[in-house]
Amino acid sequence: MELKEAEIIRDKDEMRRWSRRMRSQGKTIGLVPTMGYLHQGHISLIKEAHKHTDLIVVSIYVNPGQFAPSEDLSTYPSDFHGDLQKLMAVPGGVDAVFHPHNLYDYGSVGGGGRSGDCDVREEGKGVISCLEERGFGHETWVKVERLEKSMCGKSRPVFFRGVATVVSKLFNIVEPDVAVFGKKDYQQWRIISRMVRDLDFAIKVIGSEIVRDADGLAMSSRNVHLSPEEREKALSINRSLSRAKFAAEKGQNNCRELRDLVIQAIEEAGGRIDYAEIVEQESLEAVEEIRNPVVFCVAAWFGKVRLLDNMEINA
Amino acid sequence: MELKEAEIIRDKDEMRRWSRRMRSQGKTIGLVPTMGYLHQGHISLIKEAHKHTDLIVVSIYVNPGQFAPSEDLSTYPSDFHGDLQKLMAVPGGVDAVFHPHNLYDYGSVGGGGRSGDCDVREEGKGVISCLEERGFGHETWVKVERLEKSMCGKSRPVFFRGVATVVSKLFNIVEPDVAVFGKKDYQQWRIISRMVRDLDFAIKVIGSEIVRDADGLAMSSRNVHLSPEEREKALSINRSLSRAKFAAEKGQNNCRELRDLVIQAIEEAGGRIDYAEIVEQESLEAVEEIRNPVVFCVAAWFGKVRLLDNMEINA
Repeated sequence: MELKEAEIIRDKDEMRRWSRRMRSQGKTIGLVPTMGYLHQGHISLIKEAHKHTDLIVVSIYVNPGQFAPSEDLSTYPSDFHGDLQKLMAVPGGVDAVFHPHNLYDYGSVGGGGRSGDCDVREEGKGVISCLEERGFGHETWVKVERLEKSMCGKSRPVFFRGVATVVSKLFNIVEPDVAVFGKKDYQQWRIISRMVRDLDFAIKVIGSEIVRDADGLAMSSRNVHLSPEEREKALSINRSLSRAKFAAEKGQNNCRELRDLVIQAIEEAGGRIDYAEIVEQESLEAVEEIRNPVVFCVAAWFGKVRLLDNMEINA
Repeated sequence: MELKEAEIIRDKDEMRRWSRRMRSQGKTIGLVPTMGYLHQGHISLIKEAHKHTDLIVVSIYVNPGQFAPSEDLSTYPSDFHGDLQKLMAVPGGVDAVFHPHNLYDYGSVGGGGRSGDCDVREEGKGVISCLEERGFGHETWVKVERLEKSMCGKSRPVFFRGVATVVSKLFNIVEPDVAVFGKKDYQQWRIISRMVRDLDFAIKVIGSEIVRDADGLAMSSRNVHLSPEEREKALSINRSLSRAKFAAEKGQNNCRELRDLVIQAIEEAGGRIDYAEIVEQESLEAVEEIRNPVVFCVAAWFGKVRLLDNMEINA
């Protein structure tokens, strides 16, 4: 197999020039935003993108704007060299890897480039990301107000604001025609889709199916932090979700009972539930009885690792 | 003089196609966003835009997202036919007028296109624009957190969120190279500039100088609502600002005394001060003593009309 070497671009302006040059040649561009430490889940996003556009840009950037200071920014795994190897092996390859050092390098708090006296932490009323903590002057946030409130938004109050903002930046820098997000992060996918609609980005957002390991665990960069024992226990998430989906498809439409099934299985395995919600697929509003297509979303801790999973139920 | 007739575009997709067609021909595009009822202030923005780009798009759209239900959306003046006449008379003309009927027509509260049970007014915690009041499903807001807090942000809590959001939409629809904003709305200009920096829009933002009538009153579409008597009294704003600027340039750097001068003059004329602040030009942070370039910003009511004015002091 011929291996295609991607162009590695670290500068915003250079990235935009590359995209505009390609577009002026009539090429369409697909963007796959990632935080690196790539696995088969990411590779599936790239394969999905290949179905829609001529060229593929993969961004690799661990975004401090979506981590709270208490979260795992400092331990988020990375392996840029390994990532490049994996990208070269993707059928059809990748055309550019956007790997910026810092997407927020425009000065500190206060005026542009000047440092001010104000402590933004006081004004943030508790909603602070690692970006504010580090004193960066960035102060524009994109908020998808209803969709970001529930589920992950409850336990990670800075998360979706940070994701929507950095994705807006990436959209404005890369100017893609299509962007692909994994449905593993279901709420994130819906939030980005809503943002694109509401802000009139000229970008088609595609949600790509979850990729699972042979044992059924949803692939995630964070899985590397699971001990073999924790990993075995974590299978309670996908196994109980599958049972709930099966039950719902057989006619069980009482969400309380379906949720109890999953919560009990995960807790018995030693996991700590963050949330287990059955919600409408588009509005993400919780339902009590399944009457329309829903998605069963779970977040649970095993040891120090918070895992996400979900299954759509089109009963 | 030859009069150039602008193309009138009401549809988002058609607007974007127009821009992309022009760009593919190598043309650069300047955007002048307005709410219509054009006056010489707007015309000066168009003239400024002509200095920077090949083609000019003027948008005319009264944005419900930046008005609170208690504000003057319903009485905001409009005269589309008259606006077109004025645009035709601008030297160099205008190439396209983007005049959408509704920039938020993608369904009601809840999922896209479906109506939901939730009352967004409860969740908004008091920050509601006419958009939410009308039940539109739009829920993505761009917030420039520090700059939007002071001055106009205090008395109009939905305003800048609405402006930053609709300008983001216009940027994504028109895809201009340059956008021109009036320095009459000084805080707005600074907020848009900061937003463009923070979200990496590939757009150059230009602030254009205030245009005044012969008597010195800053031009505004809302001036039409002033009675002749109120208008005469309103001159206290620009006259006292000029005196304060003159005093500062002569060495008076005590902001309390400069502010007292302006507040007293406006109140003696029968105006009601909303704010009178001397702030740094870029950070918009209030200062007590003038040591760097500042801007003296005033908002005051005369009758039912709220007027803005400001003067930069580069003492």
